[in-house]
Amino acid sequence: MFEKEMRNLTYGLFVLSAAADGKSSGCIINTAMQVTDTPLKMAICVNKNSFTGQLIRKSRRFVVSVLDEKADFDIFRHFGFQSGKDVDKFADWKEKAETPDGVPYQTRGANAWIECEVDEEIDLGTHLMYIGFVTNADILSDVPSASYTYYHEHIKPRQEEKKEGRKAWRCIICGYIYEGADLPADFICPWCKHPASDFEPIMI
Amino acid sequence: MFEKEMRNLTYGLFVLSAAADGKSSGCIINTAMQVTDTPLKMAICVNKNSFTGQLIRKSRRFVVSVLDEKADFDIFRHFGFQSGKDVDKFADWKEKAETPDGVPYQTRGANAWIECEVDEEIDLGTHLMYIGFVTNADILSDVPSASYTYYHEHIKPRQEEKKEGRKAWRCIICGYIYEGADLPADFICPWCKHPASDFEPIMI
Repeated sequence: MFEKEMRNLTYGLFVLSAAADGKSSGCIINTAMQVTDTPLKMAICVNKNSFTGQLIRKSRRFVVSVLDEKADFDIFRHFGFQSGKDVDKFADWKEKAETPDGVPYQTRGANAWIECEVDEEIDLGTHLMYIGFVTNADILSDVPSASYTYYHEHIKPRQEEKKEGRKAWRCIICGYIYEGADLPADFICPWCKHPASDFEPIMI
Repeated sequence: MFEKEMRNLTYGLFVLSAAADGKSSGCIINTAMQVTDTPLKMAICVNKNSFTGQLIRKSRRFVVSVLDEKADFDIFRHFGFQSGKDVDKFADWKEKAETPDGVPYQTRGANAWIECEVDEEIDLGTHLMYIGFVTNADILSDVPSASYTYYHEHIKPRQEEKKEGRKAWRCIICGYIYEGADLPADFICPWCKHPASDFEPIMI
């Protein structure tokens, strides 16, 4: 319902990262915004199933790495299309650094990082919102930030579409293709965990 | 503190509107985002001093009108640089419509509107965050949404800068100029209510 209207809201793209109990992880989010200036606070939303979210819950600390227009699709694949429950995403990731408080963050294709200490956790059902005090931040480059629109137009690989063939469904978020004429209403994208409402019909 | 890093977060621009007790108003915000899909909820932030915010508090309902790249500076001046306490902003505003629940919204230079019923109010100090269920929405045009960056580069009038002359401070949000070499740290922009940290030094 109202998918098209909601897509008109403008978002940025970020790697959200956290560390707790000797583990660390990161995931892609598009919901990060400043909410107050005095004191300086920002809000982020993360899926309850997210491993990074679970680390934030324990450590009460998170870092947002702001992706820019030079970010490549591998960053989205690495941090967005696999779970930190299965893979240590920072283990072999070369372009990373650590905040003074020991939280790793992704530096490739990123123009800034912002670290927050959680002030409030708000239960939104499927997601958690964390509102945090900004404790550390730095600029990494002067490349413009990537908007969600920019990602879809320039970063995400385009897949060839055939006008005739079999009907299928493509996730507009990550590009995953469900092969079948009828997409179940409760289908969840196995790559990016978005719901059936984020799929569009295509021919393959 | 961290002004430059926070500016790298990507925002859209919106006219937030509400109605209560026979009064209505609207203001400019840059903080609106979808927070969950099932059920469909979005979050907005509004300054506690905002008259529109006070109407939301009473009516528990708000509308977000998504500004697009054809939006003109007059919309920002009309809804952003004056208070609904002094002016009935919708009274003589021609490009408006009403939701089924009777809330007026701004239609000029807007590509969609989204109406929400408040589910939660979160006190953020200087601001209030409202999280609401999306109850109605519609597309108005296919013009791309205006990002905050687009507003600064294409919609906001540029003021001539002199390299020599008197030192002054310009609000990077709305363009207001404070004439004086030293901007007080607690200065609040009289036009858009943003703090001293949103001012940049210029020569006039």
